[in-house]
Amino acid sequence: MTPQANPISFQTVDIALEDRSYGIHIGAGLLNASDSFRDLPAAHSAMIVTNDTVAPLYADRLQRSLESRFRQIHMVCLPDGESHKTWESLNLIFDALLARGCDRKTVLFALGGGVVGDMTGFAAACYMRGVPFVQVPTTLLAQVDSSVGGKTAINHPLGKNMVGAFYQPERVICDLDVLQTLPPRELSAGLAEIIKYGPIADMAFLDWIEVNIGALLAREPAALAHAVRRSCEIKAAVVGQDEREAGLRAILNFGHTFGHAIESGLGYGQWLHGEGVGCGMVMAARLSQRLGLVDVAFVDRLRVLVQRAGLPVVGPRLSATDNAGRYLELMRVDKKAEAGEIRFVVINGPGHATVRSAPDALVREVIDACCE
Amino acid sequence: MTPQANPISFQTVDIALEDRSYGIHIGAGLLNASDSFRDLPAAHSAMIVTNDTVAPLYADRLQRSLESRFRQIHMVCLPDGESHKTWESLNLIFDALLARGCDRKTVLFALGGGVVGDMTGFAAACYMRGVPFVQVPTTLLAQVDSSVGGKTAINHPLGKNMVGAFYQPERVICDLDVLQTLPPRELSAGLAEIIKYGPIADMAFLDWIEVNIGALLAREPAALAHAVRRSCEIKAAVVGQDEREAGLRAILNFGHTFGHAIESGLGYGQWLHGEGVGCGMVMAARLSQRLGLVDVAFVDRLRVLVQRAGLPVVGPRLSATDNAGRYLELMRVDKKAEAGEIRFVVINGPGHATVRSAPDALVREVIDACCE
Repeated sequence: MTPQANPISFQTVDIALEDRSYGIHIGAGLLNASDSFRDLPAAHSAMIVTNDTVAPLYADRLQRSLESRFRQIHMVCLPDGESHKTWESLNLIFDALLARGCDRKTVLFALGGGVVGDMTGFAAACYMRGVPFVQVPTTLLAQVDSSVGGKTAINHPLGKNMVGAFYQPERVICDLDVLQTLPPRELSAGLAEIIKYGPIADMAFLDWIEVNIGALLAREPAALAHAVRRSCEIKAAVVGQDEREAGLRAILNFGHTFGHAIESGLGYGQWLHGEGVGCGMVMAARLSQRLGLVDVAFVDRLRVLVQRAGLPVVGPRLSATDNAGRYLELMRVDKKAEAGEIRFVVINGPGHATVRSAPDALVREVIDACCE
Repeated sequence: MTPQANPISFQTVDIALEDRSYGIHIGAGLLNASDSFRDLPAAHSAMIVTNDTVAPLYADRLQRSLESRFRQIHMVCLPDGESHKTWESLNLIFDALLARGCDRKTVLFALGGGVVGDMTGFAAACYMRGVPFVQVPTTLLAQVDSSVGGKTAINHPLGKNMVGAFYQPERVICDLDVLQTLPPRELSAGLAEIIKYGPIADMAFLDWIEVNIGALLAREPAALAHAVRRSCEIKAAVVGQDEREAGLRAILNFGHTFGHAIESGLGYGQWLHGEGVGCGMVMAARLSQRLGLVDVAFVDRLRVLVQRAGLPVVGPRLSATDNAGRYLELMRVDKKAEAGEIRFVVINGPGHATVRSAPDALVREVIDACCE
């Protein structure tokens, strides 16, 4: 397939962050169109960072679309999976950049899911103290969440995303066509982050998802296009108000405190990030209800939708002896924690989220009620 | 020694960088005065990062000065030396922060020279995507250069400072008393960066250094105080105009292109950074002269001063077969290089520097003329 000569249609969601502003382009076939990459910073060379699952599917296509814009196009292929979101993988990117003599104008392209995006963004933030980068997310989760907003990181054995930077891309290219090859489990994982935007910010969007969950699971292009665009719009509005998570932005972590504990407790890569978030939202909604902030019907409604999306709604046991204690221990290293006190994103009325602490005893009850 | 109850006198140089502005406090006995640390961001805990040379001398003193401000004060001690400015050492900081449950309000204190400062700053930039940090430089070089301006980094086997961030400290505390325990070689290394500010920005300061080089080598407090303050003022003016080195800031790298090649070519830690810069300035001045930008007398004047400061003025051989070729090869991975073309900081008239390329043949002649 050769790059298309003519411009193709796409929608753009703008992320307004002063001199770090950029656009998210959403449309079908964008990866295959060299126009998707026009007006990027001028540079001698580009480096495509991808993984061994995505490379055979899309790397050639991206490379051909970039050929008219860069004299040299290099590529580095990382091992796939959350368990490889480590310093060792990150260093493969630095090794490749230095071995190829890449200068500080080199543009990095993150071609892959959230792990590739987070690592490429962090490499771009650090290589020679900062080079430009472009996100080309190939999973639904990355298109609606991780490639937008400039959070980059690697994991540390003692906690997820503990080492990273806030660093904005030059552009995000969401090609909806690539979602057709996504494994079903990955599609569901992306739906978790889409569902998230409803309870925290937009109940009309939650209504829409409930009506269209079948179309989304069937990967109907129009449904996917709307879900990706609306998710990016909500995230853009939140990030535009609080880029570095001084306050409001933390609501985007709804479901993530419980979810990270599950991911970390089982070992990275056992559950997908989106699966942890899906189950974590049910647990966080239950906590909100036990705190008197929402009613039981709201929790049930969310649980049913998460389940319909193909996601787990019952938490795994992380300890045979003191399961709730193990969850609490893992949640205390969450980045939102302050002086050892866990901060939860809770729903305080449909469509509104806030961040607060909760008594350990109550959290234990919620964990016991929500785990197998 | 207990912390002084009364405020002590110090001078402050302000670095004006909008919401990232901060002050450099310069004075005798600051490390021993809890007032030096007032009005820092409120936090539950502090982490002192230091090395095994500095810790026995000053760690207790700093800890006692911080005791009234932080409930918990942790410490991590890194191996000393440029050869340890690596990911492995950086990770010791992350390990300590996570093992102690440090949250994202934790304040890091860099107690040591340039290596400790660069690594602590980079760790602060990355830990939970950014925590506050304070520079407490204990070498002359760190007081006048590396602790000021927000450049942080670690080395990569293929190049110095290749992985890092621009990240500003909350404050810099330059206690002049600590310079009294500095090994003579380290004192001279610091003088290299002080001398640097003359040819690039302030010939009157160069005149002053020539008159006072004996007093500086004798560590007379008044001479040291003036040299540190004026150096910080010049650096502040440059960094204030170009924080992220889009252009002007590169002049602060006078002597560094040749110097980094020497450091890297001999293996990190063989020559001190300041020794590489001292010799590198002589080579860069010679290049400026061969480009017709300054006269021979200027080069001789600079060489004599560098030599009086106790620094090397003849470059080491980095290859038995093609010495100039090896220098060129190493300089091509310099961060200022673009598309493989080396960019040199040259003096284009006394007190003025600029960045430009130069023909390889001419650079080879300069290297041949300047090396043993």
